[in-house]
Amino acid sequence: MSVALVGAGPRDPELITVRGLARVRASEVLVYDRLVSPELVAEAPADALRIARDDLSQAEVNATLVSHGRSRFVVRLKGGDPFVFGRGGEEALALAAAGIPFELVPGVSSIAAVPGAALIPVTHRGVSQAVTAFAAHDVETLDAAALARVPGTLVAFMGGARAERLAQRLIEHGKPASTPAAVVSCGTTDDQQVVVSPLGALRGAAATPALVVIGDVVAVRAALALRRSAA
Amino acid sequence: MSVALVGAGPRDPELITVRGLARVRASEVLVYDRLVSPELVAEAPADALRIARDDLSQAEVNATLVSHGRSRFVVRLKGGDPFVFGRGGEEALALAAAGIPFELVPGVSSIAAVPGAALIPVTHRGVSQAVTAFAAHDVETLDAAALARVPGTLVAFMGGARAERLAQRLIEHGKPASTPAAVVSCGTTDDQQVVVSPLGALRGAAATPALVVIGDVVAVRAALALRRSAA
Repeated sequence: MSVALVGAGPRDPELITVRGLARVRASEVLVYDRLVSPELVAEAPADALRIARDDLSQAEVNATLVSHGRSRFVVRLKGGDPFVFGRGGEEALALAAAGIPFELVPGVSSIAAVPGAALIPVTHRGVSQAVTAFAAHDVETLDAAALARVPGTLVAFMGGARAERLAQRLIEHGKPASTPAAVVSCGTTDDQQVVVSPLGALRGAAATPALVVIGDVVAVRAALALRRSAA
Repeated sequence: MSVALVGAGPRDPELITVRGLARVRASEVLVYDRLVSPELVAEAPADALRIARDDLSQAEVNATLVSHGRSRFVVRLKGGDPFVFGRGGEEALALAAAGIPFELVPGVSSIAAVPGAALIPVTHRGVSQAVTAFAAHDVETLDAAALARVPGTLVAFMGGARAERLAQRLIEHGKPASTPAAVVSCGTTDDQQVVVSPLGALRGAAATPALVVIGDVVAVRAALALRRSAA
């Protein structure tokens, strides 16, 4: 049989793709991440084997996909897109090495969807024609000099608590402290929180997952919100 | 009434989100881009007014959304994600200024989906923990020095014909000529073509749209393809 590596998109369950949902509904085995919404897990057939990824190491996930994939149709359902901070490449390599056919079904990544849910377009004509997304779980090891200089919008995937230290490092390397910034936690869910401030005044967010957006596009949010409330 | 700004995802019509398809099916007016697949345009109700964006300026598109949005449910269907090189922010601003409620339905961006369709994960543990996507329609004005230095994967949205010049500029600013690179044209469609080479030997692609991926993650494709063919 085969394995489909499926991106579930952000937390909102209606943001999975049409093909992704079809694969979940056809699954015999569903291996899913903690951040995937329960509504999507419930879309698998009643008799499908459901395996929560939570307590498994990556090696164990790979082995699970390979062993079940030999005889059944397995769907590996991951938050966001499998190939964006999702370790889908590692799982694809494991499947390829074992000779098990696999299919990639991309998902809506948080890169643009979470800022978008906060009314921040990551690109905007005349403001930003580039976006750099990076994993910032370890702020100290980032190449802050290069990130401070790259044109366009920065999007950091991180625990929100370290946002202040990230801002500090970027400012040390020349990013203006006045650069607009936002911390978006629990993006696209009913619990979404958005805190906007200049980079120099950025504070951490307790809630996770959080995403930090840095760049002049953050000011577009204010324009949208202002006009919207004035309407 | 209101306007939904909907991302159609890449060319493959099954990569629209579940919510996006529901909005198209409920539309009274559908304003769509040239790159949106005909299958999705056909999903609008038979009596919906269909407006191709092709011959309209951005100002005319904005005015169309505002005028129809006052009295009807309008879906603005755009390739990829509305907020990633999609000018969705401009349309949202026009709607907000006119006091017309709007909703954003994100889409699968080509940033990761097109490299993914070519078996290239834009991030991969131990290889790349960052991705920079940029519009490269005007190669000469790019900040090539900053782009050559930023860590992780580069993804250029451009006409493929200028790929060679982009490579040249990055190498002039210190990007190693040996960096793996790929040009993916017509990604996710039956006409998809992938040309892999070191950055220093990168040549343009005649077909558009094209996307250029630069970074060590391109080598993951070879590992996947090699193992797949050996299986």
